[in-house]
Amino acid sequence: MRKGFKFSPPQVLVMGFAIIILAGAFLLMLPISSATGESLPFIDAFFTATSATCVTGLVVRDTGVYFSTFGQVVIMLLIQVGGIGFMTMATLFSLVFKRKISLKDRLLLQEAMNQNTMEGIVRLIRKVLLYSVVIESCSALIFAIRLAFDMPLGRALYFGIFHAVSFFNNAGFDLFGDYRSLTSYVADPVMNLVSMFLIVSGGLGFIVLSDLIELRRRRKMSLHSKVVLSMTGSLIVIGALVIFIFEFSNSKTLEPLSWSGKIWGSLFQSVTPRTAGANSLDIGALRQASQFFIIILMFIGASPSSTGGGIKTTTFTILVGAVFSMIRGRSDLVLFRYRLAEERIFKAVTITMLSLFLVIFVAMLLSTTEDASFLSILFEATSAFGTVGLTMGLTGKLTVMGKVIISLTMFAGRLGPLTLAYALGPKKEKELYRHPEGKMIIG
Amino acid sequence: MRKGFKFSPPQVLVMGFAIIILAGAFLLMLPISSATGESLPFIDAFFTATSATCVTGLVVRDTGVYFSTFGQVVIMLLIQVGGIGFMTMATLFSLVFKRKISLKDRLLLQEAMNQNTMEGIVRLIRKVLLYSVVIESCSALIFAIRLAFDMPLGRALYFGIFHAVSFFNNAGFDLFGDYRSLTSYVADPVMNLVSMFLIVSGGLGFIVLSDLIELRRRRKMSLHSKVVLSMTGSLIVIGALVIFIFEFSNSKTLEPLSWSGKIWGSLFQSVTPRTAGANSLDIGALRQASQFFIIILMFIGASPSSTGGGIKTTTFTILVGAVFSMIRGRSDLVLFRYRLAEERIFKAVTITMLSLFLVIFVAMLLSTTEDASFLSILFEATSAFGTVGLTMGLTGKLTVMGKVIISLTMFAGRLGPLTLAYALGPKKEKELYRHPEGKMIIG
Ligand SMILES: [K+]
Ligand SMILES: [K+]
Repeated sequence: MRKGFKFSPPQVLVMGFAIIILAGAFLLMLPISSATGESLPFIDAFFTATSATCVTGLVVRDTGVYFSTFGQVVIMLLIQVGGIGFMTMATLFSLVFKRKISLKDRLLLQEAMNQNTMEGIVRLIRKVLLYSVVIESCSALIFAIRLAFDMPLGRALYFGIFHAVSFFNNAGFDLFGDYRSLTSYVADPVMNLVSMFLIVSGGLGFIVLSDLIELRRRRKMSLHSKVVLSMTGSLIVIGALVIFIFEFSNSKTLEPLSWSGKIWGSLFQSVTPRTAGANSLDIGALRQASQFFIIILMFIGASPSSTGGGIKTTTFTILVGAVFSMIRGRSDLVLFRYRLAEERIFKAVTITMLSLFLVIFVAMLLSTTEDASFLSILFEATSAFGTVGLTMGLTGKLTVMGKVIISLTMFAGRLGPLTLAYALGPKKEKELYRHPEGKMIIG
Repeated sequence: MRKGFKFSPPQVLVMGFAIIILAGAFLLMLPISSATGESLPFIDAFFTATSATCVTGLVVRDTGVYFSTFGQVVIMLLIQVGGIGFMTMATLFSLVFKRKISLKDRLLLQEAMNQNTMEGIVRLIRKVLLYSVVIESCSALIFAIRLAFDMPLGRALYFGIFHAVSFFNNAGFDLFGDYRSLTSYVADPVMNLVSMFLIVSGGLGFIVLSDLIELRRRRKMSLHSKVVLSMTGSLIVIGALVIFIFEFSNSKTLEPLSWSGKIWGSLFQSVTPRTAGANSLDIGALRQASQFFIIILMFIGASPSSTGGGIKTTTFTILVGAVFSMIRGRSDLVLFRYRLAEERIFKAVTITMLSLFLVIFVAMLLSTTEDASFLSILFEATSAFGTVGLTMGLTGKLTVMGKVIISLTMFAGRLGPLTLAYALGPKKEKELYRHPEGKMIIG
């Protein structure tokens, strides 16, 4: 660790995120960042910057009310940097300066993007940026047109840009005020469709998106993309059904809505745990069964190399697949006619267990510092770990210790428990060379 | 499935348990079983018989108050049959009739005891019975002597026998009345020591016990026993520490007790989730953090081929070990200098995931049928699955649907989700021969 201060890629990643968060917190503490000109206490600025950089969306101050336009733009930039990725930015930086991407950068990126092979990383980065700009711009425009019916055009455009950035990066921040998020638009087709499109496409991961766009040329989809698309689809459909059934007769959520409103509400609340964090129903008013179900969806989260968090859809697929293989007495885990390497299964298990231990540990810590029902504490811990941003209402009531715990959890959740363990853990033991095997990405 | 009505070992196991439970329920419905001479409704009789046969200890009727001595003896016999094992009884039966143990019986036992090799099964059964009789008798005697200070001698002897049987089989039933369990003896050294000895020795599993007794002759302990003993010890110590810290200042639990009372209370509440179900503190009065911690301990449960439930200490060891291996960059999971076969890791993961899915599913179902806090529902579901018998107070308030759900969960938990999946699932697909590998027992 000493020779020339060499840091491992995970360590650089951890430090980079930490620096961005601290810089963001500093900016948010400036009087110019608040609407009233007062200075935000450090803990709240730190919490907000962490939440934005880790694209979570848990807020201790009402984004649309407390912050000035300057403060809101800082938050939006933190989201963009933290979401589309600190790593791609760093690499872009070296591209701009005409330097070749070094091996170290590539390894770093490999870590950040969870890519198994190093080839095509540069191409991937260009795509990342192109896609994000195109998708965000188009969505911002549609949002603006729709919102222009409810507010002045300039404000509608500003709202359009902010929410396109926030939702595509699965950040969950919103400007609607009074912690309302999208509840005023629960039955609105345009807002629902565009928001869900942003959330889902941001959560699929860039590899799947590039796979989808090149589908016509290649005529073949990778195993990874097949798994991500089918699992994402299944989770959304199953989630919407479960929420629809549980909430159908709940007078505080679906019951007063029309049939189409009920369907939009169920769909949106099924999509948002993937790990967007916007909500169109009052999460605190849902039934306990729905809330617990959303905890599970949040824990599963989005897909690898995406703007979302959680243990990831691929990891969950392996877990479910392993169970079915065992019951059927098969010794291999087979998905779409591909056998999965044992090493991948091992990694899926490790990530799940580490994540579970982390969420449980955080929930237990919080239950000693916060005075709230256990379900809302578990919800908050999972939301922070999965960088989701949904809350049953606890965030606003957090103690200072609670804010620190949740901030660290968001940080651990965004980097991934495995990256963090690599960065903080003991030096790796000597390992034999392993052939690059298995094309599916986990975690 | 048709030719000569052949059933697979798991199917015979499931049916055997079901028959014993129904017979028990019938006996408990007889007027002679109740103290007042009234007839117990079927659902309550079914619940009690399931709880006894699955050695759980969740009760909808106060065992010491509602039931007559006849009823209590029925419960005690169900505990003994369900605990020391339906399977050993069945094999004993064929021994008594001088028939050799058939291959089918052996396979059945292999399933029930989770043994990897078939040899020494007969020897194991003899030991099972000898040990249980010796341990239960000695403990019953000590209990009787201690209790003779508080009640007439005959009653003390009866109590001694009942509680020795209940605690060694990790059944959690008690006769103290008013759902008090051992709360009156929280600081009593004799009651604590004997109860914990019964619970822990019953929960270690007969393989470990026989290993321990033959230690002097063999001078070597199996990997399985080393893992079970070290994990059981660690869990008890860590559990007691956590409960001690969380409850130290809780005026409803440890705070009013003396120092020795605090230590006994912490130790006992750490031992009982392994999956005994007796309690010396009011579980409903514990802090949320302690309650959630106990949920985790209950989920882990006891050791394989024991009278306890849960995913088992060996399974948990593999999960923790896999995480550490991954972080250290090792490709093999090594415990006590033995490499673990991948197949074993695979099985550990499957059992954990199936169990987790089951507990979550049950908790979600219960949260639609019961009107209670989510933590108490999760506690109840885990307690039933792990055949623990602890409750935060929900059992007495269960709806009829809730009773049915909990009964089925206890049943699934006692048989193990994997056995149940084998029994109910589709026929096994053709499998290649596998060399017997790995001496550690999981699940
Ligand atoms: K989010
Ligand atoms: K029990």
